[in-house]
Amino acid sequence: MSQVISDIKKAKSASLVLATLDTETKNNALKAMAKALDKNKKKILEANAKDVSKAEKIAEKGELSDSLVKRLKVNDEKISGMIDGIKDVIKLEDPVGETISTIKLDEGLVLYQIKCPIGMLGVIFESRPDVVPQILSLCLKSGNGVAFKGGSEAFYSNRVLFDVLTNAAASAGVPKEAFVLMETRADINQILEMHEHIDLLIPRGSYEFVKYIQNNTKIPVLGHSSGICHIYVDDEADIDLALAVTLDSKIQYPAVCNAVETLLVNSKIADRFLPRMVKLFIDNNVEIRVDKRAKKSIPKDVSVIDAKEEDWDAEYNDMIISIATVDGLEEAIAFINKHGSHHTDAIITMNKDKQSEFVRSVDSADVFINASTRFADGFRYGRGAEVGISTNKIHSRGPVGMEGLMIYKYVLIGNGQVVKDYVGKDAKKYIHKRLNQKYQ
Amino acid sequence: MSQVISDIKKAKSASLVLATLDTETKNNALKAMAKALDKNKKKILEANAKDVSKAEKIAEKGELSDSLVKRLKVNDEKISGMIDGIKDVIKLEDPVGETISTIKLDEGLVLYQIKCPIGMLGVIFESRPDVVPQILSLCLKSGNGVAFKGGSEAFYSNRVLFDVLTNAAASAGVPKEAFVLMETRADINQILEMHEHIDLLIPRGSYEFVKYIQNNTKIPVLGHSSGICHIYVDDEADIDLALAVTLDSKIQYPAVCNAVETLLVNSKIADRFLPRMVKLFIDNNVEIRVDKRAKKSIPKDVSVIDAKEEDWDAEYNDMIISIATVDGLEEAIAFINKHGSHHTDAIITMNKDKQSEFVRSVDSADVFINASTRFADGFRYGRGAEVGISTNKIHSRGPVGMEGLMIYKYVLIGNGQVVKDYVGKDAKKYIHKRLNQKYQ
Repeated sequence: MSQVISDIKKAKSASLVLATLDTETKNNALKAMAKALDKNKKKILEANAKDVSKAEKIAEKGELSDSLVKRLKVNDEKISGMIDGIKDVIKLEDPVGETISTIKLDEGLVLYQIKCPIGMLGVIFESRPDVVPQILSLCLKSGNGVAFKGGSEAFYSNRVLFDVLTNAAASAGVPKEAFVLMETRADINQILEMHEHIDLLIPRGSYEFVKYIQNNTKIPVLGHSSGICHIYVDDEADIDLALAVTLDSKIQYPAVCNAVETLLVNSKIADRFLPRMVKLFIDNNVEIRVDKRAKKSIPKDVSVIDAKEEDWDAEYNDMIISIATVDGLEEAIAFINKHGSHHTDAIITMNKDKQSEFVRSVDSADVFINASTRFADGFRYGRGAEVGISTNKIHSRGPVGMEGLMIYKYVLIGNGQVVKDYVGKDAKKYIHKRLNQKYQ
Repeated sequence: MSQVISDIKKAKSASLVLATLDTETKNNALKAMAKALDKNKKKILEANAKDVSKAEKIAEKGELSDSLVKRLKVNDEKISGMIDGIKDVIKLEDPVGETISTIKLDEGLVLYQIKCPIGMLGVIFESRPDVVPQILSLCLKSGNGVAFKGGSEAFYSNRVLFDVLTNAAASAGVPKEAFVLMETRADINQILEMHEHIDLLIPRGSYEFVKYIQNNTKIPVLGHSSGICHIYVDDEADIDLALAVTLDSKIQYPAVCNAVETLLVNSKIADRFLPRMVKLFIDNNVEIRVDKRAKKSIPKDVSVIDAKEEDWDAEYNDMIISIATVDGLEEAIAFINKHGSHHTDAIITMNKDKQSEFVRSVDSADVFINASTRFADGFRYGRGAEVGISTNKIHSRGPVGMEGLMIYKYVLIGNGQVVKDYVGKDAKKYIHKRLNQKYQ
């Protein structure tokens, strides 16, 4: 048996112990982790320097982007950020054992539905080392074991962070084996087969990477492969509002999944809206790709590109926007449901009926009215740490925080009740009364 | 494109319309469906007679069990039961659009989390025709499209029920294309590939069948393949209670997933408990398979079989019980987590601490204290119609009713807010205040 397989089998067992820890033990472990980061700053910075110098050499050859090198860098401020992140997790309510519902089935027979950890998670992410404390602390607080793998660029940083944090947690009575650090791509390929031991995979990364994971495992995958977001500007839109929201959705941070990629414009408002919109785009260096009808509304001297069919299914993650014309709300909705990635889509209109219709009919995790698509984010939603954004149709959807790491179990407490008394002639009747009472 | 693939693509589109229907339209459709069943009784009974006579011939050859033939039979009473089932679904609250949470991100910027249908379901079940109205009505009320397949034994019954019900629904304005009836095993194999169009599969049937589905699709599967349930009788158990609960858990209906298969007995109570327990089993024609230690506590004149290693992983679904001895709670928990199927497991003890420890540590959907495992059931839990029992670790677990067919979307309503105002110098601050306000 390979090392990673044997480690994960042990972690699965240890996760059952982790699931039973009380809040105090877990918070003490988190405090120890925060302290350990502070105490081991030097060690962390040294390890990170090794990663960074290696990455810079690769970047010089043009094989790694400068922004990636930048995200890889850890400094004092970033370590303080990691420590604050752990402190935020200490403040989060312990979800384990929380009562979701209580129902009295009969006298002395009460059914509780209580939250419990999912079990053993696999988290795979790209280069940023600050994800190590974030994921470790969230998993610990929620009682989940985790096997994770960071980008190979952060090899030394991830290793030292992982060791410092798990040793600290162990000193407070947390089973260290519940946490596994994977270090090679081969490890990932091995764990994809481990559906008996891993309950949920959370991959973060490129479209190709997430698709690869989704296509090569039987383990449920939480996340999204693409973010093709739309804004539909209706004929009853406030034009100034439409301009501001669309520009922000495109340029505030174009590299991310919740940036808008395609702008749909109602044909009735195109002549009034598009000339001003494209001017703003041009002023901000956004490349514009338009359909034939939209082009007619754009001044001849504005340089635009004719959109191709594949533009409607493209996630640019860049300063590029595609613009299509539609004849009304229904066409806009059909376009979004066809070409979108069910991530985040917005309507700009003052008409309440159209707002409701858009919300009802657009099949996306986040459906916005008169607001920037860039708000689709765990921090902005007030959920604290985010484990990812999901476009799944089951379990969790949209920005996912710690609640996405939880499931529930039913606890039935009786005093000897048997089913035979509730069937046939003279059967006892179920009461089925909802109670406010909590489990324990 | 094959018929079923083209039907399901149409159904996926129609499911988006179904998702937007108001409660009144859906309830009117359900009322029409109930009426149509009553009106078409003759037609249904005739179709069913064809199925039954065919099945009886096969049963005579010994290739079909009598109990299956019995479950296949539809009569006036069963049709009344179907009608009552639909009426129960009319009474259920419409979950679509229900507000789960509301949070004010800033003045005039409010985020609602609202329930919506999952989308397009695939439901595959064995012979009972009464599942047709049950699944159709639950899917309709919850706004989900569904492709389903019944047992081939119920071919004519399923077809006529499906036609009667969907025609009635269509007469009330429901898009008929949202419902697809599959009739061959080849259809199933085709839909297993349709992860772009089907959001969730719910298979009901044998261990092998559910495993086959799980192993051959990328679509999430809700359900359970096996039900290996345990009872642990602790040394602090009330013996009379332990006897009654264990007997009920085994014999009340041994063919089903929530019947107990393995009894774990604390060695300290074995001499007092086992002689009486095995007598009850013998009196009720239950075959007993025991480990060496348990055998010592059983009177010599009682006929028992020596358990083999594979008995601890066996789902008998029959009048057979295996009995193992453990030295305490910890060993019992480890045994259950190792050999169980994470379905339903019970402890019999009066000791509160041990009860809590068992609940915390046993990794099963249903964890019971001093009550029969046979209570693990949607009807007994008061959830109305059950779509299945899940041993999944995400989305839904335990008996699943209509709530398992729902997911949510986030609706953000603003008045032109842009993200750039909330970052950098002089950034506006998020309020993140929970509100009680509902969406619309």
